[in-house]
Amino acid sequence: MKKFCAMVFYLIFMYLNIYAEQPIILKKQGSFFIGGKSIKIEGKYDSKKWGRPQGQTRHGDHAYVFFQIPEKSRRYPVVFLHGASQSGKSWETTPDGRDGFQNIFLRHGYSTYILDRPRCGRAGLCLYSAKVGVANVDQLCFDIFRFGLWPNYYKNVQFPTDENSLKQFFCQTTPNIGGYDKKLIADTVSKLFDKVGEGILITHSQGCESGWYTAINNRKVRAIIAIEPASGFVFPEGECPGTIISSSGFLRTSSIAKSEFVKLTRIPIIMYYGDNIPDHPTDLQGQDNWYQRLKMARLWARTINKYGGNAKVIHLPEVGIYGNTHFMFMDKNNKQIADLIFKFLKEYSLDK
Amino acid sequence: MKKFCAMVFYLIFMYLNIYAEQPIILKKQGSFFIGGKSIKIEGKYDSKKWGRPQGQTRHGDHAYVFFQIPEKSRRYPVVFLHGASQSGKSWETTPDGRDGFQNIFLRHGYSTYILDRPRCGRAGLCLYSAKVGVANVDQLCFDIFRFGLWPNYYKNVQFPTDENSLKQFFCQTTPNIGGYDKKLIADTVSKLFDKVGEGILITHSQGCESGWYTAINNRKVRAIIAIEPASGFVFPEGECPGTIISSSGFLRTSSIAKSEFVKLTRIPIIMYYGDNIPDHPTDLQGQDNWYQRLKMARLWARTINKYGGNAKVIHLPEVGIYGNTHFMFMDKNNKQIADLIFKFLKEYSLDK
Repeated sequence: MKKFCAMVFYLIFMYLNIYAEQPIILKKQGSFFIGGKSIKIEGKYDSKKWGRPQGQTRHGDHAYVFFQIPEKSRRYPVVFLHGASQSGKSWETTPDGRDGFQNIFLRHGYSTYILDRPRCGRAGLCLYSAKVGVANVDQLCFDIFRFGLWPNYYKNVQFPTDENSLKQFFCQTTPNIGGYDKKLIADTVSKLFDKVGEGILITHSQGCESGWYTAINNRKVRAIIAIEPASGFVFPEGECPGTIISSSGFLRTSSIAKSEFVKLTRIPIIMYYGDNIPDHPTDLQGQDNWYQRLKMARLWARTINKYGGNAKVIHLPEVGIYGNTHFMFMDKNNKQIADLIFKFLKEYSLDK
Repeated sequence: MKKFCAMVFYLIFMYLNIYAEQPIILKKQGSFFIGGKSIKIEGKYDSKKWGRPQGQTRHGDHAYVFFQIPEKSRRYPVVFLHGASQSGKSWETTPDGRDGFQNIFLRHGYSTYILDRPRCGRAGLCLYSAKVGVANVDQLCFDIFRFGLWPNYYKNVQFPTDENSLKQFFCQTTPNIGGYDKKLIADTVSKLFDKVGEGILITHSQGCESGWYTAINNRKVRAIIAIEPASGFVFPEGECPGTIISSSGFLRTSSIAKSEFVKLTRIPIIMYYGDNIPDHPTDLQGQDNWYQRLKMARLWARTINKYGGNAKVIHLPEVGIYGNTHFMFMDKNNKQIADLIFKFLKEYSLDK
């Protein structure tokens, strides 16, 4: 009887211990800017003549980086690059208040470097003036990020379906201030790798395009995990596939010299796509662009592998994971998604 | 001899222990949006008709909040509200890579809630369209933030004078996307206090104005620490002082009903101003506006205290602290500035 009681107490203790949230212990945290340029106006600055541009400079086109290093950190840090009209917030707390990838990766021992890419969020200074218009696109976003078909969520959707979460998600958009420039972003992320050393790059959506160029630029990128690459797959010259038929318009690809392209074969690349993507063209444009993109991702992986590379596309429903959206790192099963990534990193010994 | 050796080893151990940076242990960290509104366009959204605004909504005018709660936290959290053309980055790592107020306050046991105010940084969505122009004002900033008179630093300046720090600082500017709206900001910060409960408000520069209105709105603000309030001192109706003579233009004050104004007498308010502020008008406009502002702050404190309040202006050189800039929380002696604040909080038993 005594032994039995002891065992019950032990099991209760273990249960509480596992489910109590552990503190996050940081050796270091902070932020800095990386990259960027400045422009100087001709003339001489005069401290007594307020408001004249002469002789003054302006800065812009840098990225903002927030980093956290856990007390016991793994060897390779993870750099997170968000998608269009987002910021580093993408990777933080989920709209319903759970740990996002920032905390999940920290708890798993990875140092995190989270960017606001140039002309965005806390790195909002563009070298040129910009117009920030209003965009009435909340419902379109609901559709194209595959939460459902407005106003109905998909039955199996993994995005939290309460009203407040959706509001938090809509607020998360933050405008691009100045044009999108894939090369500028890639150069900036490459500079970040020069600063932090070899590491892992996790990209999302539009950010994936700059991710490919970053890995081409810089050998310090040891692996790319690309979450739902949208447009911007880069092919060797002369090998761009034709347009994939779709109701949602042209899917842009770009091309580079083969000698550059093959640099993508140096590292493992994995791409994840979520659920509710049709396997044929449809007039529901929120779904249809994903039909295009998933198909293009597969063509692209095949091209990389043809040159000896190691690129994989994981369409989650095919591995038995259902209901994921374009923002799978915020979805209710985001820990499950992170676990897939942890396994991938372990497979390539990038988890040391 | 043995005893002596043991003592020496003990002292070396203690020395290393004190000067090794301690880890930051967080019970919790995350981010969310607070406040904000949405606008809906008339009509019906159609999932098959891409790009039409009909029936769609847009969100905007919320603030972004990043929070960290140390494992052993004091009772009152600290809310940080930045100044014009800045973001929450103001309070993070200094331009030369030292702990900013974010880490200093965490290490001292305070929970921190750091805002990007509405229409700024990661909370960039304004409900209306905006033009973001370029501003060639780096040298003007150097002057008005009192780093020196461009291109020379003040001899005693506490801002780090290496080239990279200045570059990091210039990058830290991030545009206001849409007009500055003191009441919108105050309402939003007030909602944050409703969410987190009683706490301490630290404001900077332009942010100080919204700080006054936040405390008028919301009793949960238990103290205000205002770092170099710029314009926007609020007086009781009929008691606005005349313009203070200056070469740098009009210093705006505003007025409210006396019944509202006296709500500012409920809490301790402390204002800090740094060094290199002249005590008479000058044609060096970077200095002169501070002559105005410091003088106005004193008039304002006197008005609060006349109604039974408790407002203090600390001009740092008068307490023997020299060389501080408008960004004293990043200056080389920022720990000394934080210590002043910790003492102030202790004095009013807000450090429990």
